[in-house]
Amino acid sequence: MKLGVCYYPEHWPTSRWRTDAEQMKKIGIEYVRVGEFSWSTIEPTPEQMNWQWLDESLDILHEYGLKVILGTPTATPPKWLVDRNPGMLAKDEQGRERGFGSRRHYTFASLEYREECRRIVTIMAQRYGQHPAVVSWQTDNEFGCHDTILSYADADLTAFRLWLKDKYGTIEALNQAWGNVFWSMEYRSFDEIELPNLTVTEANPSHRLDFQRCSSDQVVAYNKLQVDILREHSAGRDLVHNYMGFFTAFDHHKVGEDLDVASWDTYPLGFLDQEAIYTQAEKQTYLRVGHPDFGAFHHDLYRGCGKGRLWIMEQQPGPVNWAPHNPTPADGAVRLWTWEAFSHGAEMVSYFRWRQAPFAQEQMHAGLLRPDAEEAEAAKEASKVASEVEQLSQALGMDADELVSLPSAGKVALMFDYDACWSLDIQPQSRAYRYLFWCYRSYQALRELGLSVDIIPATASLDTYDMLVLPAQAHISADLNRRLDAYQGVLLAGPRTGSKTETYQIPENLAPGPLAERLPLQVERVDALPEHTQPAVSGRWGVGVLKHWHEQIKTDLPCLLKDHGGNPVLVGEGRHYYLGSCLDNSVLKASFAQLAGLAGLETYYLPEGLRIRERGELIFVMNYASHSIDFVPDGAELVIGSRRLEAANIAIWKKC
Amino acid sequence: MKLGVCYYPEHWPTSRWRTDAEQMKKIGIEYVRVGEFSWSTIEPTPEQMNWQWLDESLDILHEYGLKVILGTPTATPPKWLVDRNPGMLAKDEQGRERGFGSRRHYTFASLEYREECRRIVTIMAQRYGQHPAVVSWQTDNEFGCHDTILSYADADLTAFRLWLKDKYGTIEALNQAWGNVFWSMEYRSFDEIELPNLTVTEANPSHRLDFQRCSSDQVVAYNKLQVDILREHSAGRDLVHNYMGFFTAFDHHKVGEDLDVASWDTYPLGFLDQEAIYTQAEKQTYLRVGHPDFGAFHHDLYRGCGKGRLWIMEQQPGPVNWAPHNPTPADGAVRLWTWEAFSHGAEMVSYFRWRQAPFAQEQMHAGLLRPDAEEAEAAKEASKVASEVEQLSQALGMDADELVSLPSAGKVALMFDYDACWSLDIQPQSRAYRYLFWCYRSYQALRELGLSVDIIPATASLDTYDMLVLPAQAHISADLNRRLDAYQGVLLAGPRTGSKTETYQIPENLAPGPLAERLPLQVERVDALPEHTQPAVSGRWGVGVLKHWHEQIKTDLPCLLKDHGGNPVLVGEGRHYYLGSCLDNSVLKASFAQLAGLAGLETYYLPEGLRIRERGELIFVMNYASHSIDFVPDGAELVIGSRRLEAANIAIWKKC
Amino acid sequence: MKLGVCYYPEHWPTSRWRTDAEQMKKIGIEYVRVGEFSWSTIEPTPEQMNWQWLDESLDILHEYGLKVILGTPTATPPKWLVDRNPGMLAKDEQGRERGFGSRRHYTFASLEYREECRRIVTIMAQRYGQHPAVVSWQTDNEFGCHDTILSYADADLTAFRLWLKDKYGTIEALNQAWGNVFWSMEYRSFDEIELPNLTVTEANPSHRLDFQRCSSDQVVAYNKLQVDILREHSAGRDLVHNYMGFFTAFDHHKVGEDLDVASWDTYPLGFLDQEAIYTQAEKQTYLRVGHPDFGAFHHDLYRGCGKGRLWIMEQQPGPVNWAPHNPTPADGAVRLWTWEAFSHGAEMVSYFRWRQAPFAQEQMHAGLLRPDAEEAEAAKEASKVASEVEQLSQALGMDADELVSLPSAGKVALMFDYDACWSLDIQPQSRAYRYLFWCYRSYQALRELGLSVDIIPATASLDTYDMLVLPAQAHISADLNRRLDAYQGVLLAGPRTGSKTETYQIPENLAPGPLAERLPLQVERVDALPEHTQPAVSGRWGVGVLKHWHEQIKTDLPCLLKDHGGNPVLVGEGRHYYLGSCLDNSVLKASFAQLAGLAGLETYYLPEGLRIRERGELIFVMNYASHSIDFVPDGAELVIGSRRLEAANIAIWKKC
Ligand SMILES: [Zn+2]
Ligand SMILES: [Zn+2]
Ligand SMILES: [Zn+2]
Repeated sequence: MKLGVCYYPEHWPTSRWRTDAEQMKKIGIEYVRVGEFSWSTIEPTPEQMNWQWLDESLDILHEYGLKVILGTPTATPPKWLVDRNPGMLAKDEQGRERGFGSRRHYTFASLEYREECRRIVTIMAQRYGQHPAVVSWQTDNEFGCHDTILSYADADLTAFRLWLKDKYGTIEALNQAWGNVFWSMEYRSFDEIELPNLTVTEANPSHRLDFQRCSSDQVVAYNKLQVDILREHSAGRDLVHNYMGFFTAFDHHKVGEDLDVASWDTYPLGFLDQEAIYTQAEKQTYLRVGHPDFGAFHHDLYRGCGKGRLWIMEQQPGPVNWAPHNPTPADGAVRLWTWEAFSHGAEMVSYFRWRQAPFAQEQMHAGLLRPDAEEAEAAKEASKVASEVEQLSQALGMDADELVSLPSAGKVALMFDYDACWSLDIQPQSRAYRYLFWCYRSYQALRELGLSVDIIPATASLDTYDMLVLPAQAHISADLNRRLDAYQGVLLAGPRTGSKTETYQIPENLAPGPLAERLPLQVERVDALPEHTQPAVSGRWGVGVLKHWHEQIKTDLPCLLKDHGGNPVLVGEGRHYYLGSCLDNSVLKASFAQLAGLAGLETYYLPEGLRIRERGELIFVMNYASHSIDFVPDGAELVIGSRRLEAANIAIWKKC
Repeated sequence: MKLGVCYYPEHWPTSRWRTDAEQMKKIGIEYVRVGEFSWSTIEPTPEQMNWQWLDESLDILHEYGLKVILGTPTATPPKWLVDRNPGMLAKDEQGRERGFGSRRHYTFASLEYREECRRIVTIMAQRYGQHPAVVSWQTDNEFGCHDTILSYADADLTAFRLWLKDKYGTIEALNQAWGNVFWSMEYRSFDEIELPNLTVTEANPSHRLDFQRCSSDQVVAYNKLQVDILREHSAGRDLVHNYMGFFTAFDHHKVGEDLDVASWDTYPLGFLDQEAIYTQAEKQTYLRVGHPDFGAFHHDLYRGCGKGRLWIMEQQPGPVNWAPHNPTPADGAVRLWTWEAFSHGAEMVSYFRWRQAPFAQEQMHAGLLRPDAEEAEAAKEASKVASEVEQLSQALGMDADELVSLPSAGKVALMFDYDACWSLDIQPQSRAYRYLFWCYRSYQALRELGLSVDIIPATASLDTYDMLVLPAQAHISADLNRRLDAYQGVLLAGPRTGSKTETYQIPENLAPGPLAERLPLQVERVDALPEHTQPAVSGRWGVGVLKHWHEQIKTDLPCLLKDHGGNPVLVGEGRHYYLGSCLDNSVLKASFAQLAGLAGLETYYLPEGLRIRERGELIFVMNYASHSIDFVPDGAELVIGSRRLEAANIAIWKKC
Repeated sequence: MKLGVCYYPEHWPTSRWRTDAEQMKKIGIEYVRVGEFSWSTIEPTPEQMNWQWLDESLDILHEYGLKVILGTPTATPPKWLVDRNPGMLAKDEQGRERGFGSRRHYTFASLEYREECRRIVTIMAQRYGQHPAVVSWQTDNEFGCHDTILSYADADLTAFRLWLKDKYGTIEALNQAWGNVFWSMEYRSFDEIELPNLTVTEANPSHRLDFQRCSSDQVVAYNKLQVDILREHSAGRDLVHNYMGFFTAFDHHKVGEDLDVASWDTYPLGFLDQEAIYTQAEKQTYLRVGHPDFGAFHHDLYRGCGKGRLWIMEQQPGPVNWAPHNPTPADGAVRLWTWEAFSHGAEMVSYFRWRQAPFAQEQMHAGLLRPDAEEAEAAKEASKVASEVEQLSQALGMDADELVSLPSAGKVALMFDYDACWSLDIQPQSRAYRYLFWCYRSYQALRELGLSVDIIPATASLDTYDMLVLPAQAHISADLNRRLDAYQGVLLAGPRTGSKTETYQIPENLAPGPLAERLPLQVERVDALPEHTQPAVSGRWGVGVLKHWHEQIKTDLPCLLKDHGGNPVLVGEGRHYYLGSCLDNSVLKASFAQLAGLAGLETYYLPEGLRIRERGELIFVMNYASHSIDFVPDGAELVIGSRRLEAANIAIWKKC
């Protein structure tokens, strides 16, 4: 439970640096991220390197006892470097080159750009790998931001053909796997294959899925290249990348395997305003605090990408500049978000940015300091958190490191799989269906029951969980199937689970494919509905409506929910359950409560806007509503805060 | 009244083919369409042809007594062929090449691609032209699908310049016809003319209209090339093409002149969901049966393109995959659609497709069989239709061929003209106006009165009709004017009729141009309205509102409807009437009822969702409502079904 | 108060020209604009010029005593000229060339096209510079129409680099000014700078702002080139350009400095329908008269661009063709618009166009004559205006020229600054915020109080105004700051005033920057809101809601309005006031009334739809409502019209 900040000494006069470090310490900052956009300062021309500013900055930070997370500057190569490697630029789906002038102007598949990265990262790692201030490295910045995963340049085509050859071996195998006999799409060689853009109508979904996978693998390889250099020259430092919210274009689990910690950049207001997942009502209700599950969902997701270790690399500190509308946070919101992160196991929360820059693209993005160096609201809230951490530390009789190490795992697991996401969104059947949305709403329902959830990859060990939810695991691999077989907890598989093979075909036995081994049923037909057609469901487990996706299921299993026509919607018995439709919040929550009961887990029906999260003996209570709420968890005593929680306030309880 | 199916033997193991044929027979299938996407199977490489699979398939189908419609495979040329002829690819309006990877990757104007078509069609026609199973050929597939009529590639520019030279002879004539003096758009030669895309603001409407006409003529020529080959090598077989729904980008009447039968592909749910013509209320009400006039409108339209002969080449059999949302049809809907088609004179209804493919783009598109070869819902409904046709045959004492030959013409004609459609949509004046929408709503009003309608081209003989509606015949050719002069029935001309010359100018005497010879009036000004401004109309013929288009008419003719200001809206006397505004359903229906009365035709006011259609002595009754309706036609006795029609059910009556 | 018309003799047979001239005179037309799209008639081929038609046209017009405004034909260069200078074509933001086939197919920055312009304008000026009919020249036509200010072609890049070098001198200065250290956007030379399109995410706002400024300066230079030639060969004639409505892409004040009169093209119905500024309710209410402030706002704005001289070059005379919907004007609307223009100081109102052309793009655009040469409605209304002017002339005992010279300046000034517009819209923070919209709504509120307003540039002298409103003056230049310091009237500065430096940085002392010298306050934070979040405001000056933009202000100044949390919204004392939020109409109007009171100005609360405007002793009253309204101004007697104004009617009163 430590605080950090993102800092750009290169934006300010040298004379200011000591004052900054001193003020950081005063607020309670321990970690400082530095350097990730500074390539043109480091290497202003191809003939000249300038390390002096960074040497000095690191020394000053070290002098003040601050720990540095050093960013590789590869998200913003300078203009001269782009001109030297014109093939490094990405092309968008329309075939237009995406030029210099902002950031992220490269495609991951470019081998010439990877060489430039190797060069700069090596020099940097050699120079600072053993610097006493440097405790961590961040690779690049926000992979994929500004829609930069899929690129359609020559380098991408080359990489794709190699990737396919590597995967399929022969062109006949690929033609078979993709079903290219359909519409005469058969190829004679890998060299005939094009990227799946600018086709007359949609390209083969297998083609699109493999391109997405290949593109994701380019990110993995790109990151790995930097990781290998950093490990060589800076062993023992935590390697990290900062992910983004609601972002599914590459496989974060695979990238995470090469890193030590997962971190992400959390902007609760910007994302509320920007994302289609939220209703207009939610956007209005939570305008100044963000949606109550936004932070939590990503904390749990990315902790699962970080082998249990989580940092917040960028925490919104005030109004930002990039959303369609940029309101100010409610008083207390920055503190609320910080504690929400700690409650989910975040070791460190770093605010973005130290001081609002008065120039360039983000000049309206708040920092802990205003452009005139006065403290902004967030600085006060950060200070308050720092003192509360101290207070908690004393109350629990733990030192700071022990606090960081409090257990954070939940007893319920929700499986989130990037490959499933791509598969199902490529052909959603109903525009209203989105894999991510369904997973998020499932997570929300679990959390509204007071459950502490882990979001896990398809490769995770399942043993420690009392309850497991597979919202829509499109493809059940043989390995996952084995682990499911061995799983002893209560399992719920949702609609579309097992509906595809690895190469995007319908399984021979139809959906749910291999899952039918333990859930004897068959999906005979699918009814994909518009947003406003919401047929009723009812049964022993609840009453409500279904939405978007509605499977016609043939089974002899007991029916817990049926549709209006009496057809099964939620079926199962013992430890195994199958849900064939997306459900609205009320009946979904009721069904989860039933399953949790079967799994031996206790649940709450929390009031709207209130959320709780457990870590070991601690229970964190967060109020996202705009009014005060009284809440007392069962058998616990107050450590921080009060029973009555004002809007945007928090409390911490300890089980007794 | 025969059934068919679309079949892809190349997608399945040889071992399955006999089983398939046997099962088709069992269901009652007589026609099988084969081959239209199989080019890469036929010609996997430029050096090699593979006919064995098709030889064997046709032999097996023949063995089981099935009749084959053989498709030319030119909608899906293989990759190597595209690489050999890169100039064959289309370009979209933004100038982007539309590449390989799906289907329809060619422009009709490409002479190099036409040569490839000539080659493959000739070989195929020579090989199978006399095969005993082959009773028909389908040229290519769904001309224009995926917006492939207008293309902006070099081949298109070349074709356009030739077409213009052929039409106008001299550049002076073109400049004059287009009014190019306006904005200094004058050309010195045909070689200076560009395609009308990527201009700074809209191109000259005459320019755009001629480009649309030229593009349509490319389709005609492309189709004719195949027709000539097929006639030469396979004389006596029915030549057919499968048109699409709500598609107006080429002149189907002109293409139809070269063919023997018209067919179309009917997806009532997909089109309901997808098309802007339908209101949200209609989309909700008819979610699972489609709009009651969707099938009927196209049956009557395309029968008019087929010299009175109509097939359904692809009938939706369950959920499809390509609409924004893809719900399941109501129980009985597939049967309802099939009978609707028969009631409009369809000789054959062929379901798309035999078996759901578990791979590629359409893997979620239902078939008569599921991917696992079990019968889907639609197979049962098709079987039921087959046995009802048998029942009808016996009840009427007619054999199958006599049933097919039952008369299907109506007594009311509605003129639908592709050239008028292009003309009026190029400059709609109000975004709410669309030629097709107005024609469809006019057709709907006629049909809700129980009238059986023919939809006819501008070139049709008018003699047999008691009543003729010209919804919006932009240009009245001299020939049409002569036929109108000779016409003895009741004529209604709608708004915008006669408003343009052939080269898209305003007639010297203003609208309605030559029509003023029999309807002495002048359109002085036009009031083009947004959707929600709907001024009232009233008069001897009804009360309601007008929409979208509102002409200020100067005339001494009697006024049957006036607007709020007392200005004439519907005028006329004796046999000739003119309507200057688009009307809402209620007053439009009332006006049509008046006209039908003058024409000596009897009308019903059918309950919402119910439709009837007459063929000779038979009256078909179809219920598209989601509740049951009692309906008994005057002076008729029941042959099939009952008086009370459940939702999605049908009855057949015989006049007595 | 004179009438004019736009005339295209080249579209009609020579035999018609005398008839036209005669009929113009009969209607009361004095001015005729000619020639601005006629290049292909003048120069049909590169080898041949054809002046005969224009010689004859001008002679005939002169013969009938008509005064000619001669247009340079450079908005529509002929095809051969484009083929000769392919580099003259613009490219759009997506990099697509914008080709021949409509109009305005050039980029202002093209030096090769400027040479062609120099050539044709010189020849034309030499030929007609001293023609007795020619009293004025119009340069080109509607600069920027069809989004033609920003272009991304090679010529534009070349011009931009030169412009930047000229502005900044050294690349270091530019890097500093733009804050290019952010995201490593630093350049080593001006040759590295690209245009700010097709970047991965948004380009640097300083980069974008300078590109907008440079593009605007290209228009200034392009216009100046023609002006210099015309002044040389046709001294003493009024030089004019015709601006458009709601158009801010270039600096009209700068262009206006080189001209003698400002004119604009006013289409009240087309703009009502097309523009996002108007609500659906306004679009419905004012469907047939246009919004009551549309004409007025632009009259006052462009009079400020014309050194006090204003013409209407194109006045809508009936339905047009280019808006999404094109309704007919209410009876009387054309007369209403004409008098509105006169009331704001227009010397001349010219209708577009004389006779509706039956061909090409604008064939559905009404004229004073219909295509068949009959008079359309507008001709009658124009005649009526002509006779009323005569009546007014007699009533006041003034001749026509004295009428033209009546004073038109207001006592309230509203500052409108194109540079501020670009600055604030580049980063609006809330999508709901638009500089133009806020200025327009501020103007509307002033006008609903019966105030006569001047809209002035940032460079204007402020001395003559009792009250000055700076709606959102982003950058306060040193010069403006000096004039504000000297200003003795009542000043209100609105939200975002003083929030940026000249190079788009946040001022060191934060907003309102230099304004803080006389308004001691600081904008600490900004709350940028979505459309439907409208927090309450209240205070001594009124009650209402704020919208879109909400500043958190720190100040000791008295609070006239506060937000719900008690924070200052409108503050000030004495002569200086600051408003930190956009306000809704009611509280904005109430606040303006308070300020007007402090400034010693009398106000009305006019009924909805009614507007007044003073010129010297005259008070013009205009009714835009669709019902009649009784209105009697204080201490005035009726000259034209009546106390009770019917819909779309006007009255003129004289103070007594
Ligand atoms: Zn970030
Ligand atoms: Zn089809
Ligand atoms: Zn104009």
